[in-house]
Amino acid sequence: MRGTGTLIRDFVLAATLVGLSACAGQVRGTGDLGLVIERAAGRVQVVETTGRTALGAISGLGDLSHASVVYSRDERHAFVFGRDGGLSKVDLLSERLVKRVVQAGNSIGGAISQDGTLVAVSNYQPGGVRIFDARTLDLVADIPAVYGDGTTRSKVVGLVDAPGQRFVFSLFDAGEIWVVDLSDPSAPAIRRFRDIGRQPYDGLITPDGRYYLAGLFGEDGVALLDLWNLDAGVRRILDGYGRGEEPLPVYKMPHLEGWAAAGDQLFLPAVGRHEVLVIDRRDWREVGRIAVAGQPVFVEARPDGRQVWVNFAHPDNDVVQVIDVATRQVVRTLHPGKGVMHLEFTPRGEQVWLSLRDENRVEVYDTRTLQRIATLPADKPSGIFLTARAHRIGL
Amino acid sequence: MRGTGTLIRDFVLAATLVGLSACAGQVRGTGDLGLVIERAAGRVQVVETTGRTALGAISGLGDLSHASVVYSRDERHAFVFGRDGGLSKVDLLSERLVKRVVQAGNSIGGAISQDGTLVAVSNYQPGGVRIFDARTLDLVADIPAVYGDGTTRSKVVGLVDAPGQRFVFSLFDAGEIWVVDLSDPSAPAIRRFRDIGRQPYDGLITPDGRYYLAGLFGEDGVALLDLWNLDAGVRRILDGYGRGEEPLPVYKMPHLEGWAAAGDQLFLPAVGRHEVLVIDRRDWREVGRIAVAGQPVFVEARPDGRQVWVNFAHPDNDVVQVIDVATRQVVRTLHPGKGVMHLEFTPRGEQVWLSLRDENRVEVYDTRTLQRIATLPADKPSGIFLTARAHRIGL
Repeated sequence: MRGTGTLIRDFVLAATLVGLSACAGQVRGTGDLGLVIERAAGRVQVVETTGRTALGAISGLGDLSHASVVYSRDERHAFVFGRDGGLSKVDLLSERLVKRVVQAGNSIGGAISQDGTLVAVSNYQPGGVRIFDARTLDLVADIPAVYGDGTTRSKVVGLVDAPGQRFVFSLFDAGEIWVVDLSDPSAPAIRRFRDIGRQPYDGLITPDGRYYLAGLFGEDGVALLDLWNLDAGVRRILDGYGRGEEPLPVYKMPHLEGWAAAGDQLFLPAVGRHEVLVIDRRDWREVGRIAVAGQPVFVEARPDGRQVWVNFAHPDNDVVQVIDVATRQVVRTLHPGKGVMHLEFTPRGEQVWLSLRDENRVEVYDTRTLQRIATLPADKPSGIFLTARAHRIGL
Repeated sequence: MRGTGTLIRDFVLAATLVGLSACAGQVRGTGDLGLVIERAAGRVQVVETTGRTALGAISGLGDLSHASVVYSRDERHAFVFGRDGGLSKVDLLSERLVKRVVQAGNSIGGAISQDGTLVAVSNYQPGGVRIFDARTLDLVADIPAVYGDGTTRSKVVGLVDAPGQRFVFSLFDAGEIWVVDLSDPSAPAIRRFRDIGRQPYDGLITPDGRYYLAGLFGEDGVALLDLWNLDAGVRRILDGYGRGEEPLPVYKMPHLEGWAAAGDQLFLPAVGRHEVLVIDRRDWREVGRIAVAGQPVFVEARPDGRQVWVNFAHPDNDVVQVIDVATRQVVRTLHPGKGVMHLEFTPRGEQVWLSLRDENRVEVYDTRTLQRIATLPADKPSGIFLTARAHRIGL
């Protein structure tokens, strides 16, 4: 019966493979998933926010310092932008690297088009934006950030997606903002805005996708572009905002992604100062300042806009403060541990996830009780990105 | 060898089942899925918005007239609220009915708690709200809508979720708004607001979860409750809004879920009139009226707030109009076909899905070109609900 035994084993093996091949990956919803960047390890952890656990990890993503992530519209795949020019597509269900291309020498983040078909990467070297097919990662369009005599290329920063299959970004060296319409990916329609201010170092778009703002490194103030009215051009707001007023050393230029919109108010980190600035979104004027524990880095609004959470630059990066928006008061100072790098809210705001780089862990807090409800080990975690970002504009 | 043959067949069968049971359903992301209600058939179609196709159908859901849907936080399961008191939990990946309970005699929609653990149903008969475990559909709490001498029960309408594990709803017969905190599901903390106006017939909560509004059937005006300041109580806004000013027969009381928030403006259907009203969200005053093709039913804002799409009551329910928010002008009148029942935008707004009950089809439009890009057959489709709702407050 030995032959039959082998036969049976082979049949069983084959049948099992047939069964399993029907599901290369877990059968589960993807709305409660996320990635935690493990910077030094060149790895991402796949986490879920319902049970608050780690599901697995995906390695081989290269240099993930300053890495960021966007998601496919079905929330299954993530596109990870590394500092080394690497663009990696990972599958959260099978927990594997689908494809990786090193598309430039030095990059700083990216975005995904409104319809989810195009992924754009913002490059320092060579300066420009490259557009890839979200399915295959094939190059679709190359947009060199040329300026001046047309031979020089600028570093590109502050790349965001905008409604109408557009991308918006800033040219650090050229002092320009470009709006690119990719309705026809084979023929990008570029609209350039020149002389917007010296050295735009970062940009953001309001959650409704209407206003693009670029922070200036070379002078004070912020450049504002209304995407509903491009003909009005770029105007200057917040003239006092920036390095000019800066009496303290700036340990870290705050990211504009760290700005928070809560109702009609915009909360943003003062550059170098131990303050969070409050701006009225209707006229872009400063309406208040809130004293905080250090130089703010990320100023994030809970999705319902009732709280704003703030982390800080060294030497205060072991502290997180919670601001009550209604009273503009700091209502809690938390000391989660050393090296708080990033914070991310669940989409309906009941949880916030914190990465503690120097403690090698991620912590989850209940935003109502302000109590810690989970701790996950992680290797020098930095950015935390939840799949709900797939459904939002400008992320 | 006959015995061995049977043995082999059994092994193969068993092994295959083992393999398949590892994936009871498709392996795919759930962020681009949705359900289309097929009212007469008591069935829902599972659709996806990336390829714009139907994936399958789930039957046996009872009377789905006026049915609505909420989603689990992982976007895998849907909770379907039928008019017959039925609460059905369906799995979008395996396309099957997981569980169905008939929890009342007559119901009108429901909501899911901020943390996704509790599902609430709004009941006419017996009047009240019942709370169920989202995992098992076991009854967790029963909240009878008693009023007056404490023996009478009111119909409950306008049930929504609110931040802080709360539900808010209105008592039609009692003229009350209740805010229920379910932080401790075994002991719901109820706060009652009396004399809010006669016969509240529907309610909504602003997208940030701060303001609850109840429309009044028995008199003009709207009841407003600021959930950030419950002690301030309910105030009356929009005194002119309602039946009082009504010179025309009201074919259908518009649903307040049909109100649209776009920037600082709220667009809402005038009751009975061929107008869309524009309200300033900062002071709740009417700032404009837009003439439209009929009595508006749903007035929905594209997620970026640049467009508002409107459908109409009989006899104008074959028309859909598109309003440009910047100019407050109707920029397009579409004639998709008879019986336009509902419209739903994809989360980043590039598509809108329309249900055409009397044409037995669903149509998908590109919101930039305003061209139809897909048509799907459906049996008397009514509501369309995409999984992105899982990540939003008050839906």
